[in-house]
Amino acid sequence: MPSLFIPIVLGTARRERQSEKVASYLFGELKRVEGIESEMIDVKEIMSGETVPPWVSNPNISFWKESAGRADGFIFVVPEYNHGYPGELKILLDSLYQEYAYKPVGIASVSAGYFGGARAVENLLPVLVNFSMYPLKQALYFPNIAEMFDENGGIKDTSYKKQTKEFFEELKKRALVMRGLRV
Amino acid sequence: MPSLFIPIVLGTARRERQSEKVASYLFGELKRVEGIESEMIDVKEIMSGETVPPWVSNPNISFWKESAGRADGFIFVVPEYNHGYPGELKILLDSLYQEYAYKPVGIASVSAGYFGGARAVENLLPVLVNFSMYPLKQALYFPNIAEMFDENGGIKDTSYKKQTKEFFEELKKRALVMRGLRV
Amino acid sequence: MPSLFIPIVLGTARRERQSEKVASYLFGELKRVEGIESEMIDVKEIMSGETVPPWVSNPNISFWKESAGRADGFIFVVPEYNHGYPGELKILLDSLYQEYAYKPVGIASVSAGYFGGARAVENLLPVLVNFSMYPLKQALYFPNIAEMFDENGGIKDTSYKKQTKEFFEELKKRALVMRGLRV
Amino acid sequence: MPSLFIPIVLGTARRERQSEKVASYLFGELKRVEGIESEMIDVKEIMSGETVPPWVSNPNISFWKESAGRADGFIFVVPEYNHGYPGELKILLDSLYQEYAYKPVGIASVSAGYFGGARAVENLLPVLVNFSMYPLKQALYFPNIAEMFDENGGIKDTSYKKQTKEFFEELKKRALVMRGLRV
Repeated sequence: MPSLFIPIVLGTARRERQSEKVASYLFGELKRVEGIESEMIDVKEIMSGETVPPWVSNPNISFWKESAGRADGFIFVVPEYNHGYPGELKILLDSLYQEYAYKPVGIASVSAGYFGGARAVENLLPVLVNFSMYPLKQALYFPNIAEMFDENGGIKDTSYKKQTKEFFEELKKRALVMRGLRV
Repeated sequence: MPSLFIPIVLGTARRERQSEKVASYLFGELKRVEGIESEMIDVKEIMSGETVPPWVSNPNISFWKESAGRADGFIFVVPEYNHGYPGELKILLDSLYQEYAYKPVGIASVSAGYFGGARAVENLLPVLVNFSMYPLKQALYFPNIAEMFDENGGIKDTSYKKQTKEFFEELKKRALVMRGLRV
Repeated sequence: MPSLFIPIVLGTARRERQSEKVASYLFGELKRVEGIESEMIDVKEIMSGETVPPWVSNPNISFWKESAGRADGFIFVVPEYNHGYPGELKILLDSLYQEYAYKPVGIASVSAGYFGGARAVENLLPVLVNFSMYPLKQALYFPNIAEMFDENGGIKDTSYKKQTKEFFEELKKRALVMRGLRV
Repeated sequence: MPSLFIPIVLGTARRERQSEKVASYLFGELKRVEGIESEMIDVKEIMSGETVPPWVSNPNISFWKESAGRADGFIFVVPEYNHGYPGELKILLDSLYQEYAYKPVGIASVSAGYFGGARAVENLLPVLVNFSMYPLKQALYFPNIAEMFDENGGIKDTSYKKQTKEFFEELKKRALVMRGLRV
């Protein structure tokens, strides 16, 4: 079986961002899945040292372009800010277009409170559909994020391991078949 | 090439509904596409003679269930009512679940005014993603619907023929590949 | 202070609907709030004995029209079906238009699972804004609905009493001021 | 009558942004409306010279905070990017919270194509409702933006003058009454 490449996009550049824990957790778990290679795309690093207005011409963007271009699918880590997606994630997404088409995307959403970012997921869907992405039905929700991981970045509620595995399996299943749409 | 089955769902039961013209037009055009068979699912007929509350047990629903079950994809004709989708379409969609998974769906949206139902399309997307459907990036928008067809149901603006053909081709392309997700 | 009229709309006609408990609970609690009169609008009763297609001419609709017309605000009880709102609620809402303008609306959303209908709330917002309604920032979410009430319809988690009171107070505050928009 | 303060937010920092024309046009027209003072908030200037990650602590943000704090309402100029709102607008909005509550907001949406940003408007609504803003039912849509203004920034289609006036009148009506919610 040909190996799949599925980068993980950490979609917030905020200081003290909690979503970093989720991205690290997923990156670690994804290594255990056979047949998938990954890479961390940190929106903060891509934007590092760059001012906003000319950001579209950011040289770092070529790194994202190259990664997205060869990706077979994506995982987006999306904290919910005021029922919507982070602006910096949208700027990143808007910097490319055709690189996304015919690829599955799984969303891991994050919130400080009860809902785990469920509303940000819904808010992002029209954008993803416009890119001809195929969003997974089942997002991975990370509520009460400040309490979710231990000091070593391990997830406290081990039932997440199973959910995470199913999330990856679904992504893998779609990614393999959807290669047939990009020939 | 195995033949594809892609039913067209007329998603409104209103009297004097204009969307019927769109559904008929699409049904006619779809006949010209090789390798696709179709069938009209009229939400009004499915609901005919049925009262709302017990509607989930409507015997007509088995017709929809059978059609959706063997479908390789869907076309939904969706008029925009107050920036949302018609209630009767939602009742129809909510009557099934697993029949929709891993199938592409193209939306033909309709409005009396300028926007051709573009807002109803966005409103429907979260529902379709929840069904593991794969919505086409490009909807077919039918604005100013009262003026769009001639007395014989022919579309006045012939540039729509090209758009419609591309819409079908995209649906076909996805439908063929996505069969690989349902094995 | 002139008394406010704020009907509660039970937005599902499904058999064995759990949302009925929420509507009853809210109706009971609302009685304790000074200066608000209420009335239950059950979408199932409004639709009772009526078939869907001609439903817009349903004589029962005049009851809804009269209630909505003199309302100073609304409470909608909305179960989440497949990340969207119930079709029968949308049919009810689409049956009127100007009766809704310049009135606040609070949503009590309901689900069998964890999220309490949070996604249905977001899905309904564009429709409400189109009616010139003013949706409350804070919805009342009722997750795990099968476990939420005791046999007598009492809410088990009494912390909801406080949330519910704040929800009513916010609705009342807006309703009083927004009368100034309808002169 | 006490004067109202309604700033106009230009919600894109892109080079060669066309939305600047819309913001300038609205700013000019708004001057003719008695009882409203305005100010242009340019997301590009607020972000000027600032790098993204630490942007929340941008000293320029105090200008936005002061303006938003004393505002009686808002006009947001929102180009549609991939069916969503611009990321830089979201970063700006997420930088404040309580300053927005109980204030009306009118959206002027912009697109290169046919739909005038109608989909970005819908995408933004949940965020605005979360801020306890009261979005106008009727957005001002600016489609085919490259063709809409003459060399002097005048709008070619003079029917927009009437729409724009109604938009301002609606905003003014709501702004005056909603002061009663902020006492």
